[in-house]
Amino acid sequence: MSASTREPWMVARSSVEFVEEGAFLAPRFDRDGLIPVVTTDALSGEVLMLGVMNAEALLRTIETREAHYWSRSRGALWRKGATSGLVQKIVEMRIDDDQDAIWLRVRVEGLGASCHVGYRSCFSRSVEMGLPIQAPVALTFVEREKVFDPREIYGDAPNPTKL
Amino acid sequence: MSASTREPWMVARSSVEFVEEGAFLAPRFDRDGLIPVVTTDALSGEVLMLGVMNAEALLRTIETREAHYWSRSRGALWRKGATSGLVQKIVEMRIDDDQDAIWLRVRVEGLGASCHVGYRSCFSRSVEMGLPIQAPVALTFVEREKVFDPREIYGDAPNPTKL
Repeated sequence: MSASTREPWMVARSSVEFVEEGAFLAPRFDRDGLIPVVTTDALSGEVLMLGVMNAEALLRTIETREAHYWSRSRGALWRKGATSGLVQKIVEMRIDDDQDAIWLRVRVEGLGASCHVGYRSCFSRSVEMGLPIQAPVALTFVEREKVFDPREIYGDAPNPTKL
Repeated sequence: MSASTREPWMVARSSVEFVEEGAFLAPRFDRDGLIPVVTTDALSGEVLMLGVMNAEALLRTIETREAHYWSRSRGALWRKGATSGLVQKIVEMRIDDDQDAIWLRVRVEGLGASCHVGYRSCFSRSVEMGLPIQAPVALTFVEREKVFDPREIYGDAPNPTKL
């Protein structure tokens, strides 16, 4: 679906007040037809990943209560956990004031991880802070051990990371 | 700064392994020179906002330990709280596996809110889930009352929400 697609369930963004303080979902997709999605663990509050949805992924997530995203690396609808079993069950979905971002609070099935590298969270490294920057900035792993071995789960599937 | 700007502190993204499992910051900015930033309250774990940084905002955030963003509505560097006093002090900054997204854990100064509409979080409404979608989808305010009156804080400044 393109950014201009407006399904019957998507109401018009008729005013700032309606969008910011109204009682109906009226999402704004970007020029690629996508909306960013922050996904957190409903129990720990940890940010697991930052993905995107197109209109179809949003629709399926609402209807099935399981997280669907748009995979930019594969150019396809992505039911999270379809390969790995790491399905994200939705505890709560929230929308932000101007309705151009989504927050999912989820419970992760299977091994409980959400990162293709094998960690629980994609945000497994912290950034060194507070120094005048004159050289490379150090990262430190907050998660010490992987939850799973990605080679066992994904086999020879191409790595989605772009350089 | 443009997406192609590479300051001395930004090391080359030389391999997938270096980016995903290395010990140095090597961020990837999008075609507009921006990187998305999830900001959560360090105490409650609540997602407060989803913003973007350019290279300069990232640099200043690391050096000052206060959140700086790129304001897309104003087209300018944005020290969060410059107008409202709602400064975000960084407790921890994390980077994701492919280094194209940032997670800030912050402590908010002043009235403790982060949303220009007056709520604590920009994600103050939940989305009705689990029904086949055939009509507008209902939203429910999770935050019942505003922390501040935006007219008192921002006066006549233009609302950043785009329709």
